[in-house]
Amino acid sequence: MTARFISFEGGEGGGKSTQIARLADWLRGRGKSVLTTREPGGSPGAEEIRTLFVTGAADRWDGVTEALLVSAARRDHVMKTIRPALAAGTWVLCDRFADSTLAYQGYGRGLSLEMLKTLQALATDGLTPDLTLWFDVPVTIGLHRAAARRGTEARFESLDTGFHERLAQGYATLAAAEPARFRRIDAAAPLAAVEAAVIDTVAARFPDLG
Amino acid sequence: MTARFISFEGGEGGGKSTQIARLADWLRGRGKSVLTTREPGGSPGAEEIRTLFVTGAADRWDGVTEALLVSAARRDHVMKTIRPALAAGTWVLCDRFADSTLAYQGYGRGLSLEMLKTLQALATDGLTPDLTLWFDVPVTIGLHRAAARRGTEARFESLDTGFHERLAQGYATLAAAEPARFRRIDAAAPLAAVEAAVIDTVAARFPDLG
Ligand SMILES: Nc1ncnc2c1ncn2[C@@H]1O[C@H](COP(=O)(O)OP(=O)(O)O)[C@@H](O)[C@H]1O
Ligand SMILES: Nc1ncnc2c1ncn2[C@@H]1O[C@H](COP(=O)(O)OP(=O)(O)O)[C@@H](O)[C@H]1O
Ligand SMILES: [Mg+2]
Ligand SMILES: [Mg+2]
Repeated sequence: MTARFISFEGGEGGGKSTQIARLADWLRGRGKSVLTTREPGGSPGAEEIRTLFVTGAADRWDGVTEALLVSAARRDHVMKTIRPALAAGTWVLCDRFADSTLAYQGYGRGLSLEMLKTLQALATDGLTPDLTLWFDVPVTIGLHRAAARRGTEARFESLDTGFHERLAQGYATLAAAEPARFRRIDAAAPLAAVEAAVIDTVAARFPDLG
Repeated sequence: MTARFISFEGGEGGGKSTQIARLADWLRGRGKSVLTTREPGGSPGAEEIRTLFVTGAADRWDGVTEALLVSAARRDHVMKTIRPALAAGTWVLCDRFADSTLAYQGYGRGLSLEMLKTLQALATDGLTPDLTLWFDVPVTIGLHRAAARRGTEARFESLDTGFHERLAQGYATLAAAEPARFRRIDAAAPLAAVEAAVIDTVAARFPDLG
Protein backbone atom coordinates (compact mmCIF):
# COMPACT_ATOMS: atom_id res chain seq x y z
CA MET A 1 0.00 0.00 0.00
CA THR A 2 1.33 3.45 -0.90
CA ALA A 3 2.20 5.82 1.90
CA ARG A 4 -0.52 8.33 2.78
CA PHE A 5 -0.48 11.98 3.73
CA ILE A 6 -2.84 12.91 6.61
CA SER A 7 -3.29 16.46 7.90
CA PHE A 8 -4.64 17.44 11.33
CA GLU A 9 -6.69 20.63 11.32
CA GLY A 10 -8.86 22.75 13.61
CA GLY A 11 -8.66 25.61 16.11
CA GLU A 12 -6.50 25.82 19.24
CA GLY A 13 -6.77 23.14 21.92
CA GLY A 14 -8.63 20.53 19.87
CA GLY A 15 -5.99 17.93 20.66
CA LYS A 16 -4.20 17.72 17.31
CA SER A 17 -0.69 17.63 18.74
CA THR A 18 -1.74 15.09 21.36
CA GLN A 19 -3.44 12.73 18.93
CA ILE A 20 -0.89 12.88 16.13
CA ALA A 21 1.62 11.02 18.31
CA ARG A 22 -0.98 8.38 19.18
CA LEU A 23 -1.98 7.77 15.57
CA ALA A 24 1.71 7.50 14.65
CA ASP A 25 2.14 4.77 17.31
CA TRP A 26 -0.89 2.91 16.02
CA LEU A 27 0.35 3.05 12.41
CA ARG A 28 3.83 1.89 13.45
CA GLY A 29 2.15 -1.02 15.20
CA ARG A 30 0.72 -1.92 11.78
CA GLY A 31 4.24 -1.98 10.31
CA LYS A 32 4.19 1.44 8.69
CA SER A 33 7.08 3.85 8.56
CA VAL A 34 5.66 7.15 9.88
CA LEU A 35 6.86 10.74 9.97
CA THR A 36 5.06 13.21 12.24
CA THR A 37 5.62 16.83 11.39
CA ARG A 38 4.02 20.22 11.91
CA GLU A 39 3.38 23.58 10.31
CA PRO A 40 4.54 26.21 10.12
CA GLY A 41 7.88 24.39 10.25
CA GLY A 42 8.78 20.75 9.63
CA SER A 43 12.02 21.27 7.69
CA PRO A 44 15.14 23.14 8.85
CA GLY A 45 14.40 26.19 6.67
CA ALA A 46 10.70 26.23 7.52
CA GLU A 47 11.46 26.03 11.25
CA GLU A 48 13.55 29.18 10.92
CA ILE A 49 10.62 30.89 9.21
CA ARG A 50 8.29 29.54 11.91
CA THR A 51 10.28 31.37 14.55
CA LEU A 52 9.53 34.65 12.79
CA PHE A 53 5.90 33.69 12.43
CA VAL A 54 4.89 32.49 15.89
CA THR A 55 6.78 34.84 18.22
CA GLY A 56 6.32 38.54 18.88
CA ALA A 57 3.29 40.80 18.99
CA ALA A 58 0.01 39.74 17.36
CA ASP A 59 0.31 42.61 14.86
CA ARG A 60 3.99 42.06 14.09
CA TRP A 61 3.17 41.21 10.46
CA ASP A 62 0.21 42.39 8.44
CA GLY A 63 -2.11 39.67 7.17
CA VAL A 64 -0.66 39.44 3.65
CA THR A 65 2.92 39.31 4.95
CA GLU A 66 1.89 36.52 7.30
CA ALA A 67 0.29 34.60 4.43
CA LEU A 68 3.45 34.97 2.33
CA LEU A 69 5.71 33.84 5.18
CA VAL A 70 3.67 30.79 6.05
CA SER A 71 3.46 29.91 2.36
CA ALA A 72 7.25 30.12 2.03
CA ALA A 73 7.61 27.81 5.03
CA ARG A 74 5.06 25.38 3.58
CA ARG A 75 6.84 25.26 0.23
CA ASP A 76 10.12 24.40 1.91
CA HIS A 77 8.41 21.76 4.06
CA VAL A 78 6.72 20.12 1.05
CA MET A 79 9.86 20.10 -1.11
CA LYS A 80 12.42 19.14 1.54
CA THR A 81 10.45 16.92 3.93
CA ILE A 82 6.97 15.78 2.89
CA ARG A 83 7.47 14.80 -0.75
CA PRO A 84 10.76 12.94 -0.09
CA ALA A 85 9.15 11.02 2.81
CA LEU A 86 6.11 9.95 0.77
CA ALA A 87 8.39 8.97 -2.13
CA ALA A 88 10.33 6.74 0.30
CA GLY A 89 7.12 4.98 1.40
CA THR A 90 6.77 6.80 4.74
CA TRP A 91 3.36 7.89 5.97
CA VAL A 92 3.26 11.60 6.77
CA LEU A 93 1.09 12.96 9.62
CA CYS A 94 1.11 16.74 9.55
CA ASP A 95 -0.06 19.00 12.38
CA ARG A 96 -1.69 21.76 10.25
CA PHE A 97 -1.33 22.25 6.49
CA ALA A 98 -2.78 24.52 3.79
CA ASP A 99 -6.30 24.56 5.27
CA SER A 100 -4.89 26.41 8.29
CA THR A 101 -3.92 29.32 6.05
CA LEU A 102 -7.41 29.50 4.56
CA ALA A 103 -8.92 29.27 8.05
CA TYR A 104 -6.60 31.67 9.96
CA GLN A 105 -5.71 34.27 7.33
CA GLY A 106 -8.88 33.89 5.24
CA TYR A 107 -11.85 33.24 7.53
CA GLY A 108 -10.10 34.53 10.67
CA ARG A 109 -8.37 37.66 9.41
CA GLY A 110 -10.59 38.34 6.40
CA LEU A 111 -8.03 38.10 3.58
CA SER A 112 -9.23 37.16 0.11
CA LEU A 113 -9.80 33.40 -0.14
CA GLU A 114 -9.06 33.51 -3.86
CA MET A 115 -5.68 35.16 -3.23
CA LEU A 116 -4.89 32.63 -0.51
CA LYS A 117 -5.83 29.68 -2.75
CA THR A 118 -3.49 31.00 -5.46
CA LEU A 119 -0.71 31.20 -2.86
CA GLN A 120 -1.47 27.68 -1.62
CA ALA A 121 -1.19 26.24 -5.12
CA LEU A 122 2.37 27.62 -5.15
CA ALA A 123 3.16 26.65 -1.58
CA THR A 124 1.96 23.04 -1.75
CA ASP A 125 3.30 22.42 -5.26
CA GLY A 126 -0.12 20.83 -5.87
CA LEU A 127 0.19 18.30 -3.02
CA THR A 128 -3.14 17.67 -1.23
CA PRO A 129 -3.61 15.46 1.86
CA ASP A 130 -5.23 12.08 1.25
CA LEU A 131 -7.20 12.64 4.44
CA THR A 132 -7.78 15.68 6.65
CA LEU A 133 -8.89 15.11 10.23
CA TRP A 134 -10.86 18.13 11.41
CA PHE A 135 -10.72 18.45 15.20
CA ASP A 136 -13.98 20.23 15.90
CA VAL A 137 -14.16 21.63 19.43
CA PRO A 138 -16.25 24.49 20.87
CA VAL A 139 -14.10 27.63 21.06
CA THR A 140 -14.44 28.05 24.81
CA ILE A 141 -13.31 24.48 25.51
CA GLY A 142 -10.41 24.68 23.04
CA LEU A 143 -9.08 27.98 24.40
CA HIS A 144 -9.42 26.74 27.97
CA ARG A 145 -7.33 23.65 27.14
CA ALA A 146 -4.79 25.70 25.21
CA ALA A 147 -4.36 28.12 28.12
CA ALA A 148 -3.11 25.22 30.24
CA ARG A 149 -0.16 24.59 27.90
CA ARG A 150 0.54 28.22 27.00
CA GLY A 151 4.20 28.95 26.25
CA THR A 152 5.88 31.59 24.12
CA GLU A 153 3.96 30.69 21.00
CA ALA A 154 0.64 32.17 22.11
CA ARG A 155 0.28 34.78 19.39
CA PHE A 156 -2.98 33.52 17.96
CA GLU A 157 -4.51 32.49 21.24
CA SER A 158 -4.33 36.12 22.35
CA LEU A 159 -6.68 37.20 19.56
CA ASP A 160 -10.32 37.86 20.41
CA THR A 161 -13.08 35.27 20.65
CA GLY A 162 -14.70 36.62 17.46
CA PHE A 163 -11.57 35.57 15.58
CA HIS A 164 -11.78 32.04 16.97
CA GLU A 165 -15.49 31.81 16.17
CA ARG A 166 -14.84 32.82 12.54
CA LEU A 167 -12.08 30.23 12.44
CA ALA A 168 -14.38 27.46 13.65
CA GLN A 169 -17.02 28.46 11.11
CA GLY A 170 -14.33 28.58 8.41
CA TYR A 171 -13.26 25.01 9.10
CA ALA A 172 -16.90 23.88 8.92
CA THR A 173 -17.19 25.56 5.50
CA LEU A 174 -13.95 24.02 4.21
CA ALA A 175 -14.98 20.56 5.42
CA ALA A 176 -18.41 20.84 3.79
CA ALA A 177 -16.80 21.85 0.48
CA GLU A 178 -14.56 18.76 0.33
CA PRO A 179 -16.38 15.88 1.99
CA ALA A 180 -14.20 13.26 0.29
CA ARG A 181 -11.06 14.59 1.97
CA PHE A 182 -12.31 15.88 5.37
CA ARG A 183 -13.51 13.80 8.31
CA ARG A 184 -14.91 15.52 11.39
CA ILE A 185 -13.58 14.39 14.78
CA ASP A 186 -15.67 15.30 17.85
CA ALA A 187 -12.78 16.83 19.77
CA ALA A 188 -14.87 17.84 22.78
CA ALA A 189 -14.92 14.19 23.87
CA PRO A 190 -12.47 12.75 26.45
CA LEU A 191 -8.95 11.94 25.26
CA ALA A 192 -9.46 8.20 24.92
CA ALA A 193 -12.68 8.68 22.94
CA VAL A 194 -10.96 11.09 20.55
CA GLU A 195 -8.09 8.65 20.09
CA ALA A 196 -10.54 5.85 19.24
CA ALA A 197 -12.40 8.11 16.80
CA VAL A 198 -9.15 9.03 15.02
CA ILE A 199 -8.11 5.40 14.65
CA ASP A 200 -11.55 4.27 13.50
CA THR A 201 -11.65 7.08 10.93
CA VAL A 202 -8.22 6.27 9.53
CA ALA A 203 -8.93 2.55 9.43
CA ALA A 204 -12.23 3.16 7.61
CA ARG A 205 -10.63 5.52 5.12
CA PHE A 206 -7.71 3.18 4.31
CA PRO A 207 -9.19 -0.33 4.57
CA ASP A 208 -5.95 -1.94 3.35
CA LEU A 209 -4.40 -1.14 6.74
CA GLY A 210 -6.10 -4.30 8.00
CA MET B 1 6.73 68.91 -4.43
CA THR B 2 5.62 65.48 -3.26
CA ALA B 3 8.21 63.00 -2.11
CA ARG B 4 9.31 60.51 -4.76
CA PHE B 5 10.15 56.83 -4.70
CA ILE B 6 13.26 55.86 -6.72
CA SER B 7 14.50 52.29 -7.11
CA PHE B 8 18.05 51.23 -8.06
CA GLU B 9 18.18 48.09 -10.19
CA GLY B 10 20.66 45.95 -12.11
CA GLY B 11 23.04 43.01 -11.71
CA GLU B 12 25.87 42.64 -9.20
CA GLY B 13 28.64 45.25 -9.09
CA GLY B 14 26.91 47.95 -11.11
CA GLY B 15 27.46 50.49 -8.34
CA LYS B 16 23.92 50.75 -6.95
CA SER B 17 24.93 50.73 -3.30
CA THR B 18 27.73 53.20 -3.97
CA GLN B 19 25.59 55.66 -5.89
CA ILE B 20 22.50 55.55 -3.68
CA ALA B 21 24.41 57.30 -0.90
CA ARG B 22 25.67 59.98 -3.32
CA LEU B 23 22.23 60.70 -4.72
CA ALA B 24 20.89 60.95 -1.17
CA ASP B 25 23.54 63.55 -0.35
CA TRP B 26 22.68 65.52 -3.48
CA LEU B 27 18.95 65.48 -2.67
CA ARG B 28 19.60 66.52 0.92
CA GLY B 29 21.61 69.41 -0.48
CA ARG B 30 18.41 70.44 -2.26
CA GLY B 31 16.56 70.49 1.05
CA LYS B 32 14.86 67.11 0.75
CA SER B 33 14.32 64.66 3.55
CA VAL B 34 15.70 61.36 2.22
CA LEU B 35 15.53 57.74 3.34
CA THR B 36 17.94 55.24 1.76
CA THR B 37 16.90 51.65 2.15
CA ARG B 38 17.52 48.27 0.53
CA GLU B 39 15.92 44.98 -0.35
CA PRO B 40 15.52 42.34 0.73
CA GLY B 41 15.31 44.10 4.07
CA GLY B 42 14.69 47.72 4.99
CA SER B 43 12.36 47.18 7.96
CA PRO B 44 13.10 45.23 11.16
CA GLY B 45 10.95 42.27 10.10
CA ALA B 46 12.23 42.28 6.53
CA GLU B 47 15.84 42.37 7.71
CA GLU B 48 15.20 39.19 9.68
CA ILE B 49 13.79 37.58 6.53
CA ARG B 50 16.79 38.90 4.55
CA THR B 51 19.13 36.96 6.80
CA LEU B 52 17.38 33.74 5.77
CA PHE B 53 17.48 34.78 2.14
CA VAL B 54 21.06 35.92 1.56
CA THR B 55 23.11 33.49 3.65
CA GLY B 56 23.71 29.79 3.19
CA ALA B 57 24.12 27.57 0.14
CA ALA B 58 22.92 28.72 -3.28
CA ASP B 59 20.33 25.91 -3.34
CA ARG B 60 19.16 26.44 0.23
CA TRP B 61 15.67 27.40 -0.97
CA ASP B 62 13.99 26.34 -4.18
CA GLY B 63 13.04 29.15 -6.55
CA VAL B 64 9.41 29.44 -5.52
CA THR B 65 10.29 29.45 -1.81
CA GLU B 66 12.79 32.22 -2.50
CA ALA B 67 10.16 34.23 -4.37
CA LEU B 68 7.71 33.83 -1.47
CA LEU B 69 10.30 34.85 1.12
CA VAL B 70 11.47 37.92 -0.73
CA SER B 71 7.83 38.88 -1.34
CA ALA B 72 7.07 38.61 2.38
CA ALA B 73 10.07 40.84 3.13
CA ARG B 74 8.99 43.36 0.48
CA ARG B 75 5.46 43.52 1.86
CA ASP B 76 6.76 44.27 5.33
CA HIS B 77 9.18 46.87 3.96
CA VAL B 78 6.43 48.63 1.97
CA MET B 79 3.91 48.65 4.83
CA LYS B 80 6.28 49.48 7.71
CA THR B 81 8.93 51.68 6.07
CA ILE B 82 8.35 52.92 2.52
CA ARG B 83 4.70 53.99 2.62
CA PRO B 84 5.03 55.76 6.00
CA ALA B 85 8.16 57.63 4.78
CA LEU B 86 6.51 58.81 1.55
CA ALA B 87 3.40 59.85 3.48
CA ALA B 88 5.63 61.96 5.75
CA GLY B 89 7.18 63.75 2.74
CA THR B 90 10.46 61.83 2.75
CA TRP B 91 12.04 60.77 -0.55
CA VAL B 92 12.74 57.04 -0.63
CA LEU B 93 15.78 55.64 -2.48
CA CYS B 94 15.61 51.87 -2.56
CA ASP B 95 18.50 49.55 -3.44
CA ARG B 96 16.50 46.89 -5.38
CA PHE B 97 12.71 46.50 -5.45
CA ALA B 98 10.14 44.34 -7.26
CA ASP B 99 12.02 44.32 -10.59
CA SER B 100 14.81 42.36 -8.87
CA THR B 101 12.39 39.51 -8.23
CA LEU B 102 11.31 39.44 -11.88
CA ALA B 103 14.96 39.60 -12.97
CA TYR B 104 16.51 37.10 -10.50
CA GLN B 105 13.73 34.57 -9.98
CA GLY B 106 12.04 35.07 -13.37
CA TYR B 107 14.69 35.70 -16.04
CA GLY B 108 17.56 34.29 -13.94
CA ARG B 109 16.02 31.16 -12.45
CA GLY B 110 13.27 30.62 -15.00
CA LEU B 111 10.18 30.90 -12.80
CA SER B 112 6.89 31.96 -14.37
CA LEU B 113 6.81 35.73 -14.87
CA GLU B 114 3.03 35.71 -14.58
CA MET B 115 3.22 33.98 -11.18
CA LEU B 116 5.91 36.42 -10.03
CA LYS B 117 3.86 39.43 -11.14
CA THR B 118 0.88 38.14 -9.17
CA LEU B 119 3.13 37.81 -6.12
CA GLN B 120 4.53 41.32 -6.64
CA ALA B 121 1.05 42.84 -6.75
CA LEU B 122 0.59 41.39 -3.24
CA ALA B 123 4.07 42.26 -2.03
CA THR B 124 4.12 45.90 -3.14
CA ASP B 125 0.50 46.58 -2.21
CA GLY B 126 0.34 48.26 -5.66
CA LEU B 127 3.20 50.69 -4.95
CA THR B 128 5.39 51.34 -8.04
CA PRO B 129 8.57 53.47 -8.11
CA ASP B 130 8.26 56.90 -9.72
CA LEU B 131 11.64 56.28 -11.32
CA THR B 132 13.81 53.19 -11.70
CA LEU B 133 17.52 53.66 -12.38
CA TRP B 134 18.82 50.65 -14.25
CA PHE B 135 22.58 50.20 -13.68
CA ASP B 136 23.60 48.47 -16.89
CA VAL B 137 27.08 46.98 -16.70
CA PRO B 138 28.68 44.12 -18.66
CA VAL B 139 28.52 40.93 -16.57
CA THR B 140 32.28 40.40 -16.48
CA ILE B 141 32.94 43.93 -15.19
CA GLY B 142 30.15 43.75 -12.61
CA LEU B 143 31.22 40.37 -11.22
CA HIS B 144 34.85 41.50 -11.11
CA ARG B 145 33.88 44.57 -9.05
CA ALA B 146 31.59 42.54 -6.81
CA ALA B 147 34.37 40.01 -6.11
CA ALA B 148 36.40 42.82 -4.56
CA ARG B 149 33.77 43.46 -1.89
CA ARG B 150 32.70 39.86 -1.34
CA GLY B 151 31.50 39.11 2.17
CA THR B 152 29.11 36.54 3.57
CA GLU B 153 26.25 37.55 1.29
CA ALA B 154 27.73 36.11 -1.90
CA ARG B 155 25.01 33.58 -2.62
CA PHE B 156 23.98 34.94 -6.01
CA GLU B 157 27.46 35.89 -7.15
CA SER B 158 28.42 32.23 -6.90
CA LEU B 159 25.89 31.29 -9.59
CA ASP B 160 27.14 30.67 -13.13
CA THR B 161 27.78 33.29 -15.79
CA GLY B 162 24.77 32.09 -17.79
CA PHE B 163 22.57 33.13 -14.88
CA HIS B 164 24.06 36.63 -14.85
CA GLU B 165 23.71 36.95 -18.63
CA ARG B 166 20.02 36.02 -18.41
CA LEU B 167 19.65 38.56 -15.62
CA ALA B 168 21.21 41.35 -17.72
CA GLN B 169 18.95 40.46 -20.65
CA GLY B 170 15.97 40.38 -18.30
CA TYR B 171 16.63 43.90 -17.07
CA ALA B 172 16.90 45.10 -20.67
CA THR B 173 13.50 43.54 -21.39
CA LEU B 174 11.89 45.03 -18.29
CA ALA B 175 13.30 48.49 -19.10
CA ALA B 176 12.08 48.32 -22.71
CA ALA B 177 8.57 47.38 -21.52
CA GLU B 178 8.26 50.42 -19.22
CA PRO B 179 10.20 53.30 -20.78
CA ALA B 180 8.32 55.92 -18.75
CA ARG B 181 9.59 54.47 -15.48
CA PHE B 182 13.06 53.10 -16.35
CA ARG B 183 16.19 55.12 -17.14
CA ARG B 184 19.36 53.32 -18.22
CA ILE B 185 22.62 54.33 -16.49
CA ASP B 186 25.88 53.37 -18.22
CA ALA B 187 27.40 51.75 -15.17
CA ALA B 188 30.62 50.67 -16.91
CA ALA B 189 31.80 54.29 -16.76
CA PRO B 190 34.11 55.58 -13.97
CA LEU B 191 32.53 56.36 -10.59
CA ALA B 192 32.38 60.14 -11.07
CA ALA B 193 30.77 59.79 -14.49
CA VAL B 194 28.13 57.40 -13.13
CA GLU B 195 27.42 59.82 -10.29
CA ALA B 196 26.93 62.67 -12.75
CA ALA B 197 24.66 60.53 -14.93
CA VAL B 198 22.50 59.59 -11.94
CA ILE B 199 22.09 63.21 -10.86
CA ASP B 200 21.39 64.44 -14.40
CA THR B 201 18.79 61.72 -14.85
CA VAL B 202 17.01 62.49 -11.59
CA ALA B 203 17.09 66.25 -12.22
CA ALA B 204 15.67 65.74 -15.72
CA ARG B 205 12.94 63.42 -14.48
CA PHE B 206 11.85 65.73 -11.63
CA PRO B 207 12.38 69.25 -12.99
CA ASP B 208 10.82 70.83 -9.88
CA LEU B 209 13.99 69.89 -7.98
CA GLY B 210 15.57 73.03 -9.49
N1 LIG C 1 -9.88 15.34 24.46
C1 LIG C 1 -9.26 16.08 25.39
N2 LIG C 1 -9.80 16.29 26.60
C2 LIG C 1 -9.16 17.06 27.51
N3 LIG C 1 -7.99 17.66 27.34
C3 LIG C 1 -7.39 17.47 26.13
C4 LIG C 1 -7.99 16.72 25.10
N4 LIG C 1 -7.18 16.75 24.01
C5 LIG C 1 -6.12 17.52 24.35
N5 LIG C 1 -6.25 17.94 25.63
C6 LIG C 1 -5.31 18.81 26.34
O1 LIG C 1 -5.54 20.12 25.83
C7 LIG C 1 -4.31 20.80 25.62
C8 LIG C 1 -4.20 21.17 24.14
O2 LIG C 1 -4.06 19.98 23.36
P1 LIG C 1 -3.20 20.00 22.02
O3 LIG C 1 -3.00 18.59 21.56
O4 LIG C 1 -1.97 20.85 22.21
O5 LIG C 1 -4.22 20.76 21.04
P2 LIG C 1 -3.93 21.44 19.65
O6 LIG C 1 -2.65 20.88 19.14
O7 LIG C 1 -5.11 21.05 18.79
O8 LIG C 1 -3.90 22.93 19.87
C9 LIG C 1 -3.21 19.87 26.09
O9 LIG C 1 -2.86 20.23 27.39
C10 LIG C 1 -3.86 18.50 26.04
O10 LIG C 1 -3.34 17.61 27.00
N1 LIG D 1 31.76 53.04 -11.68
C1 LIG D 1 32.59 52.25 -10.97
N2 LIG D 1 33.85 52.03 -11.36
C2 LIG D 1 34.67 51.22 -10.65
N3 LIG D 1 34.32 50.59 -9.50
C3 LIG D 1 33.07 50.79 -9.07
C4 LIG D 1 32.14 51.60 -9.76
N4 LIG D 1 30.97 51.60 -9.09
C5 LIG D 1 31.16 50.81 -8.01
N5 LIG D 1 32.42 50.33 -7.99
C6 LIG D 1 32.99 49.40 -7.00
O1 LIG D 1 32.48 48.14 -7.33
C7 LIG D 1 32.10 47.44 -6.15
C8 LIG D 1 30.61 47.10 -6.23
O2 LIG D 1 29.84 48.32 -6.13
P1 LIG D 1 28.42 48.31 -5.43
O3 LIG D 1 28.01 49.73 -5.26
O4 LIG D 1 28.46 47.44 -4.22
O5 LIG D 1 27.56 47.60 -6.59
P2 LIG D 1 26.09 46.97 -6.48
O6 LIG D 1 25.46 47.52 -5.25
O7 LIG D 1 25.41 47.40 -7.74
O8 LIG D 1 26.29 45.47 -6.45
C9 LIG D 1 32.45 48.32 -4.97
O9 LIG D 1 33.72 47.91 -4.48
C10 LIG D 1 32.54 49.71 -5.59
O10 LIG D 1 33.44 50.55 -4.92
MG1 LIG E 1 -0.89 21.86 18.61
MG1 LIG F 1 24.70 46.53 -3.58
